Amino acid sequence: MAPSRPHVVIVGAGFGGLAAAKRLAGKRVDVTLVDRRNHHLFQPLLYQVATAALSPADIAAPIRSIFAKAANVRVLLDEVTGIDASKRRVLLSRSSLLAYDWLILATGARHSYFGREGWEREAPGLKSIEDAIAIRRRVLLAMEHAETETDPDRRNTLLTFIVVGGGPTGVEMAGAIAELARRSVSSDFRSITPHCSRVILVEGGPQILPSFPPGLSAKAEQSLRELGVEIRTNAPVREIADGEVAFGGERVAASSIVWAAGVEASPAAQWLSAEHDRLGRIFVERDLRVPHQDHIFAIGDTANVPGIDGRALPGIAPVAKQQGQHAADQILGRCSGPFTYRSFGNLATIGRKRAVIDWGHHQQSGFLAWLIWSFAHIWFLIGFRSRVVVGLSWLWNYLTYQRSARLITGTPQPHIRIK
Amino acid sequence: MAPSRPHVVIVGAGFGGLAAAKRLAGKRVDVTLVDRRNHHLFQPLLYQVATAALSPADIAAPIRSIFAKAANVRVLLDEVTGIDASKRRVLLSRSSLLAYDWLILATGARHSYFGREGWEREAPGLKSIEDAIAIRRRVLLAMEHAETETDPDRRNTLLTFIVVGGGPTGVEMAGAIAELARRSVSSDFRSITPHCSRVILVEGGPQILPSFPPGLSAKAEQSLRELGVEIRTNAPVREIADGEVAFGGERVAASSIVWAAGVEASPAAQWLSAEHDRLGRIFVERDLRVPHQDHIFAIGDTANVPGIDGRALPGIAPVAKQQGQHAADQILGRCSGPFTYRSFGNLATIGRKRAVIDWGHHQQSGFLAWLIWSFAHIWFLIGFRSRVVVGLSWLWNYLTYQRSARLITGTPQPHIRIK
Repeated sequence: MAPSRPHVVIVGAGFGGLAAAKRLAGKRVDVTLVDRRNHHLFQPLLYQVATAALSPADIAAPIRSIFAKAANVRVLLDEVTGIDASKRRVLLSRSSLLAYDWLILATGARHSYFGREGWEREAPGLKSIEDAIAIRRRVLLAMEHAETETDPDRRNTLLTFIVVGGGPTGVEMAGAIAELARRSVSSDFRSITPHCSRVILVEGGPQILPSFPPGLSAKAEQSLRELGVEIRTNAPVREIADGEVAFGGERVAASSIVWAAGVEASPAAQWLSAEHDRLGRIFVERDLRVPHQDHIFAIGDTANVPGIDGRALPGIAPVAKQQGQHAADQILGRCSGPFTYRSFGNLATIGRKRAVIDWGHHQQSGFLAWLIWSFAHIWFLIGFRSRVVVGLSWLWNYLTYQRSARLITGTPQPHIRIK
Repeated sequence: MAPSRPHVVIVGAGFGGLAAAKRLAGKRVDVTLVDRRNHHLFQPLLYQVATAALSPADIAAPIRSIFAKAANVRVLLDEVTGIDASKRRVLLSRSSLLAYDWLILATGARHSYFGREGWEREAPGLKSIEDAIAIRRRVLLAMEHAETETDPDRRNTLLTFIVVGGGPTGVEMAGAIAELARRSVSSDFRSITPHCSRVILVEGGPQILPSFPPGLSAKAEQSLRELGVEIRTNAPVREIADGEVAFGGERVAASSIVWAAGVEASPAAQWLSAEHDRLGRIFVERDLRVPHQDHIFAIGDTANVPGIDGRALPGIAPVAKQQGQHAADQILGRCSGPFTYRSFGNLATIGRKRAVIDWGHHQQSGFLAWLIWSFAHIWFLIGFRSRVVVGLSWLWNYLTYQRSARLITGTPQPHIRIK
């Protein structure tokens, strides 16, 4: 590596890290992109893997393939364990040290149980392909067991699914589970019928989709109810134990509980002893640099960046992408100064045929919003093949109500325990 | 269940069990199809999942969906643990007993290590989706680790892949690994190049594809060599330990060892204390009935049925399908008498563009054979959607040399150990 070409290390190949690496590809820098996974994951569609509509490979692309033609980008499968900022070195789990001239931290977020870590085992979250396959397995197994269960109470429990958290992820997940349990598979079973299934969406605050205007939030609520989802607002979860969720004044037993109530940043702030908010996001400078670290940028879910309203920008793909590009442009000397987020609207979908979009000045809901949502998601999928496959899978699901990826995998003898 | 409608229990939803259930669907019988998996697996293409060309859901279909419209077919996710033939009952792991009037055993086969069970951990076989994902993970991880390995000996070991067994499965697997390691991913890596990789196919007998005529076998050998596969015949494996395979006069260390050397029947013969061959297959009557059990049929890999040459029919899908139909027809009173297998040819493929077909009177090899092989496999895939997706995936792989399902999943911190 000639000393005249600066070495940029990017940690994390999510939307932010990928956008930065793409911006730096082919430029007069050497780039090393480190991720502990070999694939970039299109997380906005992960809930569709969890609900058997798509296959993992449809929404994941090998990071190496994305940069096959970028000779100055090296991809490294490894896990970062710390940073020695004084010597400008990244510490790795498997390989030797990695020296950098510039460092971009795009390490993303993981579920947060806000101090109730014991809840994780009962109510898994949805961040990785393994998470999605585990949830898919649990939901499908519950229906299989319900088919042969003769005790009505136990059958009801098997067919009860609870989603905790009424943000976009929770809303999408609840809608998709309701479609799966109440529509797609109903003709396949002999004993259970659609109206046996209960899907409950639990939200601590006064409305679902709290980041959307109340009008759209009400539309989303109505659409979910039409799909058969029961909605509980102002119902903070008090306890999750023994397959039961206690929320508001209720306590409900369920076969599957999905956690969509919150995330926290990866431990990047701790690596640098940097100041962070309560979710672990580093309070970066307005140009995305970590304070006192001129050569380190933090982006995406790793950073707390205030928007025009003073509140932190949300943890969504467009924010991370634009930040990755902004960090890369500063390294290339193309621009300097504060990052400003350009919003193209806020989207959430509710099952087949319905979505809500907040353009800011204008709002959209219903079938047209769903079409826009679909095209936007297919368009941004990495790789032409994924676009075609996902597009066709959706068309197929739409026309037939079938779910094509209904596989229970993991162990040869599947058992689940309910109360 | 009215007593006038006989109850047929089918154990196993592989090719044989599925064919029997389809033949009985809509007829004046009640059918219960038991499988410990929720999906039928198109095993002939499983090696393509192991080598990252297809996704699991592309070659698997939920058993329930297949029989959604057959009101007289009930699907049960459970594992059979034994049979009480005197009381005509099947014993299950999870549910209660299942009484039958007719029983069809189509329980299939599993790997056999011929008494060397310790080899299984070192050299996994390929029978389930989990097997395929584990092999995929191992092969892809080996290449990732080779990319950063600086010691040349260790790098060579990481890039050495051994397939044990020169039957159709071993030949297809070796060809597919060679394409993956030497073609598809070569531009994605910076340090490793195609000629670093070694793929060795080890066969104990004098020729690969022993069930094919020597001329086709030689053609297959030549095609494999052109793909870069090293072939060792007359090289029975003496030992597999510590990541090394000892065969013939050699001992070679490898990162991935795949077992394709043999299978044995599931324990159905033991359930009935029936006479069986050394692979565990029941010696059935010529009408496929288990001796002394007028109401029990054994088919597919569970049964030893002599062909016209006196040797047992091979464990391939067409044999199992025709036997399933024959058993069902006898239950329906449509026919009686001995089963005769009608062969439509014997196929094996060797990577992209090459295959061999033995029609008996005529032989075919090369690109045309590969086209026929492709169409045959797509045609017999369960479900229209799978056909479309697999067809498109193949076209895409063919045109671009890409492998679209290159995901390493399982644990967040992947490590593999080599000697």
